Amino acid sequence: MRRLINDPYDVVEEMLSGYVKAHSDYVKLLEHDGRVVVTTNPVPGKVGVIIGGGSGHEPLFLGYVGKNFADAAVIGNINTSPSPEPCYNAVKAVDQGKGCIYLYGNYAGDVMNFDMGAEMAADDGIRVETVLVTDDVVSSENIEDRRGIAGDLFVFKAAAAAAAKGMDLDAVVAAAKKCNDNTRSMGVALSSSTIPVKGGTIFDMEDGDMEIGMGIHGEPGVRRGKIEPADQVVDEIMEHILKDFPLSEGDEVYTLVNGLGGLPLMDQYILHNHLEEVLRGKGVKVYKSLVGNYATSMDMIGMGITLVKVDEELKELLDYPVDTPYMSIR
Amino acid sequence: MRRLINDPYDVVEEMLSGYVKAHSDYVKLLEHDGRVVVTTNPVPGKVGVIIGGGSGHEPLFLGYVGKNFADAAVIGNINTSPSPEPCYNAVKAVDQGKGCIYLYGNYAGDVMNFDMGAEMAADDGIRVETVLVTDDVVSSENIEDRRGIAGDLFVFKAAAAAAAKGMDLDAVVAAAKKCNDNTRSMGVALSSSTIPVKGGTIFDMEDGDMEIGMGIHGEPGVRRGKIEPADQVVDEIMEHILKDFPLSEGDEVYTLVNGLGGLPLMDQYILHNHLEEVLRGKGVKVYKSLVGNYATSMDMIGMGITLVKVDEELKELLDYPVDTPYMSIR
Repeated sequence: MRRLINDPYDVVEEMLSGYVKAHSDYVKLLEHDGRVVVTTNPVPGKVGVIIGGGSGHEPLFLGYVGKNFADAAVIGNINTSPSPEPCYNAVKAVDQGKGCIYLYGNYAGDVMNFDMGAEMAADDGIRVETVLVTDDVVSSENIEDRRGIAGDLFVFKAAAAAAAKGMDLDAVVAAAKKCNDNTRSMGVALSSSTIPVKGGTIFDMEDGDMEIGMGIHGEPGVRRGKIEPADQVVDEIMEHILKDFPLSEGDEVYTLVNGLGGLPLMDQYILHNHLEEVLRGKGVKVYKSLVGNYATSMDMIGMGITLVKVDEELKELLDYPVDTPYMSIR
Repeated sequence: MRRLINDPYDVVEEMLSGYVKAHSDYVKLLEHDGRVVVTTNPVPGKVGVIIGGGSGHEPLFLGYVGKNFADAAVIGNINTSPSPEPCYNAVKAVDQGKGCIYLYGNYAGDVMNFDMGAEMAADDGIRVETVLVTDDVVSSENIEDRRGIAGDLFVFKAAAAAAAKGMDLDAVVAAAKKCNDNTRSMGVALSSSTIPVKGGTIFDMEDGDMEIGMGIHGEPGVRRGKIEPADQVVDEIMEHILKDFPLSEGDEVYTLVNGLGGLPLMDQYILHNHLEEVLRGKGVKVYKSLVGNYATSMDMIGMGITLVKVDEELKELLDYPVDTPYMSIR
């Protein structure tokens, strides 16, 4: 395993400790709960926005806590949901009497634990609503059963902007759902990530192989084969996405080529280059683009494409200014 | 090789094409020279700031072209200096009658080619000065012979801020030199990067080994051994840096834990956590910190620590607002 860590059982605590040291102008840990990262610049009088999930996907989730973005991130162990207490403690820390929204990718463990956190908050009379991100097109035929991957970023962003603009909880929920309904992703993996407590990879993948459609925790994809040229990989991913999510001439999309950790930025821009060509070829306008490691699987070599079909409302929400360590929009 | 590319001989052109597509609100390629990335938001009446070098270090160099930062980046092939023509073309594109500064890491090929570009500019009556970055403490006993690694970022930033503030070329040169004099770095590699035209790694490194002090192109370091705990690696690097660059109680430093590409952010924050402890233990104040992949070697697994000893002048230059795709300071 090619990692630089100390005790493999301490990686999450040490990472969080390092994170709040490096970004103390943005975030802190709750004094009574070291698994909750909260903003030090709360916007007064708004709905509380809480994101979270297992760690190992940095800069997701902690990197998106900050002004006009998430108020708190709840951090689980690697690839493992946080337990209910920090989910509840996050609500207690950020609720300002307007209720809170939980936003996270659709994984069974997260649903169970965040739901318990919401029940504990309800006992205190705090309303907490949940919107699950379900952008991974190949993870299920049924949209509501799909996993959330890098589309998280956009759904979090849209909901947080609605909250920052002073909208009430119902409107924040509606913004999150609208963004999720218009977001689709699919990825490819060329290697497994390494797990510190395991001392190695989760699964074997030969050098030279790739798995199209693999999830960010190594969930099975649609096929495994030899690595193909970047353009062909984009074409295959786009075929799956567009089958599920037909785009017409004149539509506008916000694109993300998301690196999973070990894929060079060079390759990500090569992939983006063809992605824009494919979209333009269909008469689809690229509104804006992100390229980079926004939601990773530690050192997994791979990438995903995310498309958000945007209208004026979603553009305004996604362009709304934010200031966090891993996203800055003026 | 676990990469997603097309023709290995086209990686730089396709990357640049994707980069300017994704960030067209920030940058474009020169029409007559596709190896020069220039800002689309030039600040009028200032000294031209030109950075560059071989590609494969993204987001260095192209990611730091933008408002109040570099006006142009000259892009070579992977690990290879750009040729003199684009160095010259960059000057012609960004000179506003106040002269230009070339800033890059100290590598023989870059020095030769940028120097020829400066001579061609001199024939046109344009003054071009050069400041070489020499932050890698273990690359030579003599400071002026040392290589430049992630310290590039700070030296570029300081000089660009001086230029953006309207200082003349001599003052911009002085700012760059002052920052370089106060910057030290050292790294560790756990793997080689992969080279597309080679179809594999540059050198062999067994899984489980590390090389302390290795350069970002794989230049030999001070020793190879088994991977040690993160804290010990930080301690060893800091011992080398502090032997060269004694810091005293009350000194202030700007720190960077720079990922070389394949090392997870998790590990980088774990390393930062101990780095801050070490500095605090010596009574050195951490002024600000960066953690992330700022200057990479594509998929090389490894990291470096950079320290900049800051006074009020350097703080002002390093904090000066910039807006580029890979650095945003308000």
